[in-house]
Amino acid sequence: MRIDGRKQDELRHIKIETNYIKHPEGSVLISVGDTKVICSASIEDRVPPFMRGEGKGWITAEYSMLPRATEQRTMREATKGKVTGRTMEIQRLIGRALRSVVSLEDLGEKTIWIDCDVIQADGGTRTASITGAFVAMVLALGKLLEKGSIKKLPIKDYLAATSVGIVDEIGVVLDLNYEEDSKANVDMNVIMTGKGQFVELQGTGEEATFSYAELNELLAVAEQGIQDLIQKQKEALGELAQHIE
Amino acid sequence: MRIDGRKQDELRHIKIETNYIKHPEGSVLISVGDTKVICSASIEDRVPPFMRGEGKGWITAEYSMLPRATEQRTMREATKGKVTGRTMEIQRLIGRALRSVVSLEDLGEKTIWIDCDVIQADGGTRTASITGAFVAMVLALGKLLEKGSIKKLPIKDYLAATSVGIVDEIGVVLDLNYEEDSKANVDMNVIMTGKGQFVELQGTGEEATFSYAELNELLAVAEQGIQDLIQKQKEALGELAQHIE
Amino acid sequence: MRIDGRKQDELRHIKIETNYIKHPEGSVLISVGDTKVICSASIEDRVPPFMRGEGKGWITAEYSMLPRATEQRTMREATKGKVTGRTMEIQRLIGRALRSVVSLEDLGEKTIWIDCDVIQADGGTRTASITGAFVAMVLALGKLLEKGSIKKLPIKDYLAATSVGIVDEIGVVLDLNYEEDSKANVDMNVIMTGKGQFVELQGTGEEATFSYAELNELLAVAEQGIQDLIQKQKEALGELAQHIE
Amino acid sequence: MRIDGRKQDELRHIKIETNYIKHPEGSVLISVGDTKVICSASIEDRVPPFMRGEGKGWITAEYSMLPRATEQRTMREATKGKVTGRTMEIQRLIGRALRSVVSLEDLGEKTIWIDCDVIQADGGTRTASITGAFVAMVLALGKLLEKGSIKKLPIKDYLAATSVGIVDEIGVVLDLNYEEDSKANVDMNVIMTGKGQFVELQGTGEEATFSYAELNELLAVAEQGIQDLIQKQKEALGELAQHIE
Amino acid sequence: MRIDGRKQDELRHIKIETNYIKHPEGSVLISVGDTKVICSASIEDRVPPFMRGEGKGWITAEYSMLPRATEQRTMREATKGKVTGRTMEIQRLIGRALRSVVSLEDLGEKTIWIDCDVIQADGGTRTASITGAFVAMVLALGKLLEKGSIKKLPIKDYLAATSVGIVDEIGVVLDLNYEEDSKANVDMNVIMTGKGQFVELQGTGEEATFSYAELNELLAVAEQGIQDLIQKQKEALGELAQHIE
Amino acid sequence: MRIDGRKQDELRHIKIETNYIKHPEGSVLISVGDTKVICSASIEDRVPPFMRGEGKGWITAEYSMLPRATEQRTMREATKGKVTGRTMEIQRLIGRALRSVVSLEDLGEKTIWIDCDVIQADGGTRTASITGAFVAMVLALGKLLEKGSIKKLPIKDYLAATSVGIVDEIGVVLDLNYEEDSKANVDMNVIMTGKGQFVELQGTGEEATFSYAELNELLAVAEQGIQDLIQKQKEALGELAQHIE
Repeated sequence: MRIDGRKQDELRHIKIETNYIKHPEGSVLISVGDTKVICSASIEDRVPPFMRGEGKGWITAEYSMLPRATEQRTMREATKGKVTGRTMEIQRLIGRALRSVVSLEDLGEKTIWIDCDVIQADGGTRTASITGAFVAMVLALGKLLEKGSIKKLPIKDYLAATSVGIVDEIGVVLDLNYEEDSKANVDMNVIMTGKGQFVELQGTGEEATFSYAELNELLAVAEQGIQDLIQKQKEALGELAQHIE
Repeated sequence: MRIDGRKQDELRHIKIETNYIKHPEGSVLISVGDTKVICSASIEDRVPPFMRGEGKGWITAEYSMLPRATEQRTMREATKGKVTGRTMEIQRLIGRALRSVVSLEDLGEKTIWIDCDVIQADGGTRTASITGAFVAMVLALGKLLEKGSIKKLPIKDYLAATSVGIVDEIGVVLDLNYEEDSKANVDMNVIMTGKGQFVELQGTGEEATFSYAELNELLAVAEQGIQDLIQKQKEALGELAQHIE
Repeated sequence: MRIDGRKQDELRHIKIETNYIKHPEGSVLISVGDTKVICSASIEDRVPPFMRGEGKGWITAEYSMLPRATEQRTMREATKGKVTGRTMEIQRLIGRALRSVVSLEDLGEKTIWIDCDVIQADGGTRTASITGAFVAMVLALGKLLEKGSIKKLPIKDYLAATSVGIVDEIGVVLDLNYEEDSKANVDMNVIMTGKGQFVELQGTGEEATFSYAELNELLAVAEQGIQDLIQKQKEALGELAQHIE
Repeated sequence: MRIDGRKQDELRHIKIETNYIKHPEGSVLISVGDTKVICSASIEDRVPPFMRGEGKGWITAEYSMLPRATEQRTMREATKGKVTGRTMEIQRLIGRALRSVVSLEDLGEKTIWIDCDVIQADGGTRTASITGAFVAMVLALGKLLEKGSIKKLPIKDYLAATSVGIVDEIGVVLDLNYEEDSKANVDMNVIMTGKGQFVELQGTGEEATFSYAELNELLAVAEQGIQDLIQKQKEALGELAQHIE
Repeated sequence: MRIDGRKQDELRHIKIETNYIKHPEGSVLISVGDTKVICSASIEDRVPPFMRGEGKGWITAEYSMLPRATEQRTMREATKGKVTGRTMEIQRLIGRALRSVVSLEDLGEKTIWIDCDVIQADGGTRTASITGAFVAMVLALGKLLEKGSIKKLPIKDYLAATSVGIVDEIGVVLDLNYEEDSKANVDMNVIMTGKGQFVELQGTGEEATFSYAELNELLAVAEQGIQDLIQKQKEALGELAQHIE
Repeated sequence: MRIDGRKQDELRHIKIETNYIKHPEGSVLISVGDTKVICSASIEDRVPPFMRGEGKGWITAEYSMLPRATEQRTMREATKGKVTGRTMEIQRLIGRALRSVVSLEDLGEKTIWIDCDVIQADGGTRTASITGAFVAMVLALGKLLEKGSIKKLPIKDYLAATSVGIVDEIGVVLDLNYEEDSKANVDMNVIMTGKGQFVELQGTGEEATFSYAELNELLAVAEQGIQDLIQKQKEALGELAQHIE
């Protein structure tokens, strides 16, 4: 039995509030249980210097946590004067994941800036960020579509992420909260598309290892969770969902 | 007539949601019109090195804006690797203001960390931060009182802040939004206590100046606005308000 | 009776040595009692990127203290690798104050760099910096006038600054030295023009507050001090003073 | 047919020169084709502050490339003043991987510092670093054993890493060189133990995705490659290999 | 004939004003022609961590230039966020030179902080800094002697520095000003003691070279200049000079 | 008798392996006893901004040590976030020295980047870097010659460097290893050309001084050592040596 009473393959309660803040072209507040992330998507009409003149767009992501998103106050990275390795890893992961389902050619020479700011953390902040950021990005692209700046959504497929892990005495579990995550022997983040293709797979056993059989079990549970998350994304997008094949 | 139809001495709509996030000892989401700030107060059981052994507490504040709190995306200070002068000024101001109404002796050797994170900005973010941070701080101290760590709230008086300014063709106005602020000739932040004493007064006319008569007019309008804000703080604090004389 | 025998509304001894160093277009060594600041003004024939093409000039200021300007040696900001919040606040204040009395349109696309370097500190370094920087700036503009690069001084009025405060057992005092400043309950910096208009007002009571009546008393004393300082500026400028209405 | 004539499941030429530099407790120069990395292991007789008093050891890793390890000169991170996100990701990965096969309790309160410095890069620098670092670490621990500071090697199993990927017109390939890597649709780093357990799995398709069937094919090829690498490690370790079960 | 009419082996006008600023234990304003440096010496009653418990003192130096010490304004190192290589070289040189004539054992566990701040630069700022810093340091030690904290000056000999160079059409010249320095083929800084021993010799020909014969000529001229500088130091020290053998 | 049995005027064993790494235009591994440095030279087809349009080339150098090049592990400068003063001094020295023997006009608007990375340190790393970097630079220029980008080697003379010092009970010694260096009273780095001209002379006696007579003795020994080093350079360059007069 899991700490919060969930079944092994059960997601936490998911809520995606769209247009949560007024300035960005697209924004959501995504809640995955007690994990809450403001995701916003900003469109800029140019690309970084290394991509100019190629006729393609770019997507870049930043991630941060409020100091008291966590149980113990975390020092601000701005105060430290540098971004930690963990943050950089997450930022790179979010950007890479989103780029895998966007046709950068169809986007044209624009940059989509994704900002994921965790206001409350209870495990799974990077996967919630990806799931929420996908919706914010589609909302922002929807604005471009409405204004006629693009002719169709440059989106190739849905994209969502979740975590799976192996916890002593329970086994494989889906969508770990903070307490489960800190006890898990194996922790795996899975990012998949609506068609069930892998985009990214990151499995690690900090002081443990895992077998081929366990890997298969983890992936099966993850796949189901991701399909449920994509269903929530479709509901949040409403009419816009029809523009994604 | 003001842009948003308000009277010259009218505040924007004020809303203070208490216990907005779950981890901090005290937290609020304060909305002053479209300006929204998450204020949290964290209690640490020790003081900074320069104050150890004096038997007194300390209050320190940090302030930040999400990149898309603003109309144009602002680069993160963590990415820049340093905190801007504007942020430092605001952080110092918030800390100084809160310390003026707390008996640091009664607090004892504890540090209160205040975090003000602007999630949506429409002018007056520093004054909203102070008004909200006061409530978050009292909530956190209320927790200490409940646990019996302190015998009474070490609060000497209420504290709130607002802005006043002089706008062409309108004159003195209270609680400027972003559009008014960018057009104002004179901009003044006023921080006052419940008893109507000044805590801090910062008036500036970037490319203008102001007379003694104008100063008096500005202060009269500010004082009324602050009393209204303090009324909202009392409502938000509920029962706890009784512990502040 | 004040520590150094001055009357409550008496300035310290003021001395302004013009053209103190040879390279800058304008420079002074200003002494306000034992506080000594080298102020220099440099003219650059372009404006920062964000202002290009607007036909207007810009004024920016930097402030620093030699490590042993203070009683205890202060670590260099260059060694720390960053500018402190206090320094940034002062730099922004000096720039803002000077811009309020200069017609940036008449200046044209030029930048005036102000450098205020405190070589000996005894309280009031920021107000001495402003008073001295005004003179250095006019001297530099005088050079432009002489060379025919500008047709008249783009100066709208005189500008000077001083501090006032409230000290226990004495009351309101003008131009606080370091010892008075560290004991004062209320500390206010006032920046005014030759015509008696306020440019900036910054009053604070770190762990105290002040009433409306006290504010009025502080401002009256400040105004008189500022008029005396402007008299000293006129003497230092000599002939050039005739070019300022 | 692969660019360099290898079969799809064939590693590049592997060479591990032990005790390559004289100061570290353990060091190797590992060559994987044209990728060359100096790996050194240093033993420090204490652990980082966050681990003191727990009776356990710690392993931490740093990674860098000489500026001309790459075809185009790369700017030094020391010159930039900060470590890039890519480097941080790799450093964290190496440390995490090594910790998974070491009994930190048996190590006792010691820190093993791993330094991986790439002197020539041709793809696969992070996996070569892990494979080489394992040998350097065992050599360093061997010194401790010899001196009697530890009673047995605190090593639970062998550890090696390689990359697999999917390249157009060829399919799944093992141990990609730089040219293959830059063309691959899918790139996966696999870290495994001598007993064939997974330690870390990182698969990504930057602008592509991969199916479950492809994942299985990739893992099969990786596993064989890793067993070959572990054979090379055993040869390099010579007598010391007998101390690892 | 030299630009300013001096003979080849003639120093510029030297002036050493003692106790130039009031807070440091020792301070001078040294003028070498138009080069002006404020040198101060601060005594701290402890040594850096790496020297504790050895019963010896330490001397460390910092050097900086005001932004408009130079003809073109130089950006502040504090603004850049880092100290340049040139500054570091000079700081290390000043500290090393002073330590060579102080008995660190006789000084005891104290640190002497030397600050050299160039307020006007016209070539030779590092050598003027050393010559001035020696006097400031002796003044500070004189204070300790007066207070009885030390029994005798821990000074082994006088120390001064100057530059020599080779300029086209003139040959070897002493004490180069900025214009000469920028034209010189060879530039050499010489630091010597009162007894004529070398402390440091740094000769360089950026895009030129020099012969053994030229080296000898340069050293002869430098030696005479240094003896003249030491005479000026003795005059500046007055009575204190008697305490140095 | 010296620690390692050498005669006072005897160099350590010198070995220069050319084309040590494959990507740079020129590279060597130079060994001077146990000091080993990888020197690489990269050619870039443009000059830094401050030199554009002058038709001249530029040479710039960077220097670093692997963390375990030294007996105790040294923290990486990238991790510290800044380059130390010692490194900056060495980088400036290497660049300046190489520029003295290259005709920057004949080179044309190109930059030569020199990278010296010490993989094992035993004293004399900066002089070994210069001696090795000269060879790497000539190799890189040889590539340009071969491709016809330049018509002749823009090299005016050979260049090598060594250290000399004075050690108690032994006297003047050539090419100090680490142990000798840490005991030496006087330490001097000498950089000379093939024709026996001085390029740079840096002599220092940290807590000692040296006489004119000692200087002469040091220089005589250095000169002989440098001629031997240049002989090794010629052998390493092979055919290319004929292109240097």
